Amino acid sequence: MTQAVGIARAHTNIALIKYWGKRDQELFLPMNSSLSLTLDAFYTDTKVIFDDTYTADSFSLNGKEQSEKEIQKISRFLDLFREYIGEGRFARVESLNFVPTAAGLASSASAFAALALASADALKLNMTPQELSTFARRGSGSSTRSLFGGFVQWDMGTGSADSMAYPIDDADWDIGMLVLAVDTKEKKIASRVGMEHTVQTSPFYPAWLETTKEDLSAIKTAILAKDFETLGQITEHNGMKMHATTLSANPPFTYWTADSLLAQEAVRQVREDLHLQVYMTMDAGPNVKVLCRASDMERLVQALSAYLPAEKIIKSLPGPAASILSQEDWQASHQKFSERI
Amino acid sequence: MTQAVGIARAHTNIALIKYWGKRDQELFLPMNSSLSLTLDAFYTDTKVIFDDTYTADSFSLNGKEQSEKEIQKISRFLDLFREYIGEGRFARVESLNFVPTAAGLASSASAFAALALASADALKLNMTPQELSTFARRGSGSSTRSLFGGFVQWDMGTGSADSMAYPIDDADWDIGMLVLAVDTKEKKIASRVGMEHTVQTSPFYPAWLETTKEDLSAIKTAILAKDFETLGQITEHNGMKMHATTLSANPPFTYWTADSLLAQEAVRQVREDLHLQVYMTMDAGPNVKVLCRASDMERLVQALSAYLPAEKIIKSLPGPAASILSQEDWQASHQKFSERI
Repeated sequence: MTQAVGIARAHTNIALIKYWGKRDQELFLPMNSSLSLTLDAFYTDTKVIFDDTYTADSFSLNGKEQSEKEIQKISRFLDLFREYIGEGRFARVESLNFVPTAAGLASSASAFAALALASADALKLNMTPQELSTFARRGSGSSTRSLFGGFVQWDMGTGSADSMAYPIDDADWDIGMLVLAVDTKEKKIASRVGMEHTVQTSPFYPAWLETTKEDLSAIKTAILAKDFETLGQITEHNGMKMHATTLSANPPFTYWTADSLLAQEAVRQVREDLHLQVYMTMDAGPNVKVLCRASDMERLVQALSAYLPAEKIIKSLPGPAASILSQEDWQASHQKFSERI
Repeated sequence: MTQAVGIARAHTNIALIKYWGKRDQELFLPMNSSLSLTLDAFYTDTKVIFDDTYTADSFSLNGKEQSEKEIQKISRFLDLFREYIGEGRFARVESLNFVPTAAGLASSASAFAALALASADALKLNMTPQELSTFARRGSGSSTRSLFGGFVQWDMGTGSADSMAYPIDDADWDIGMLVLAVDTKEKKIASRVGMEHTVQTSPFYPAWLETTKEDLSAIKTAILAKDFETLGQITEHNGMKMHATTLSANPPFTYWTADSLLAQEAVRQVREDLHLQVYMTMDAGPNVKVLCRASDMERLVQALSAYLPAEKIIKSLPGPAASILSQEDWQASHQKFSERI
């Protein structure tokens, strides 16, 4: 019996300059370069075992065996690695998602980043993290950014080989994020479907692409200058522009719910009352993310608690790059997961 | 004593192709041509008396004397007529707004249309309704459309003299509108301020203008063909695009509240459940307007009542052109107004 085992942890990330639209559906090549902040509070731990004796791939998530449909997604992703090394061994994948239950955040970014790193480690692939990010990308576009910590850019590239992510800054300068997890129901319109409909029908999409290019350049300048106000303003503007493209699609649609608006109004009110630098962004779902100073987080949570249930407000600091875990780490992770349920 | 008296009624209108941005702030020249539906359920009755013995303008609205600030707005508007005829007589203006209290709809469209027609009648101006609409425009852009009934176009024109409205179709073909008056608080951002901020800062604004030109052409074709589905689809798309421009402004803003989203979700649910042709539009405020078949209104109101308080749902048929009222009409109007309070 030959067995190859890899274990890895990757954190989720929130885009400040959004990825919204693919130029290649198959290869997950984006229409624009994007930039994110990796979050400490949300991560996925994944163990992958390639074994000669297995007769099929299998996949367990949070201790539950997954459906054939979910396994197929994993299998297609593992095929990239199997093709790369020219070996067809089946694999067992076990994942634990460390996402507060109330958050209901999409975990595909951390999931595919962790699986990519675990697979590369198991198969002893000699890849740079950048190269590996081109693999992660094929599982879920945004997972390409979850291989790195702090502020991360995903370069749109010219093709599959150079559409990769790299770290911009470790975000170790009084940066925090609150996730206002107002609604954890599954979204009605998958981001894949929403972005494609937008690309195809929104008359505002060309201006979105054009100005997002400018936003990316400006936010990198702000990050390097540690100019938090400009960083935040660009973040809020870029995110709202993304949501404007869904309203301008034909027929129009929105990821916002009444609870999203209540959360937005709460943030605006608190921003006005406390004179704090807080900036909102939203993704393809109803939750509101708030970029803020880490040193302001406690005051913010307290003020926002007047408007939202406290358990819906989740704090995070910037997170680190994806990392290899030992077997002991994995056992500790299992222990931690079982305790939190 | 020389006295000149005019009394008129004008109905409010809801834009299906939105007016959103001025190219001339002083002359109220719009950035684009727009198209509206005049509503039967909401109107303003106004009496104006020009009198040699008056020593100042005065203005009473719904039986209440108005502040100096409100009087100044009226005075500046009356100056247009006084300059036109070369006479400086002061005037007394009395207006009654027939807008269901729950609706909280901006009444400036019907208000300035009624005042324009009353003034022209009092001063025996020999003007076509189109010419008069260029005067109404100077009080409030959208009032230019309230001089006419049914579907009305406001042509952006090349200057003040030809930026005027004209009727397109009397809308006498199974057309109705529901106003979901979810929030009647005064809006935080006046439409004048919101549109100017959008024109100046939204990167999507040029595409808004370009595609609104196409929408206007297409909706007129649909109206003439009595193609309700296309009419509705263009209405919903154009209105959402307008709101997309506010999200893309810098800093971004929105006229939507949580209640707006609840109303939108109710309309989407009812549309899906009943398979009815209903289309939403929104203006510079939180209320949702629903374009529908007049023959479907009862069923719609009943279905929407499961989601919204029934008193927030106001039905209207298409309304007629502005008209001159007699002294007897005016007395009847007063009587009706006093009874409704």
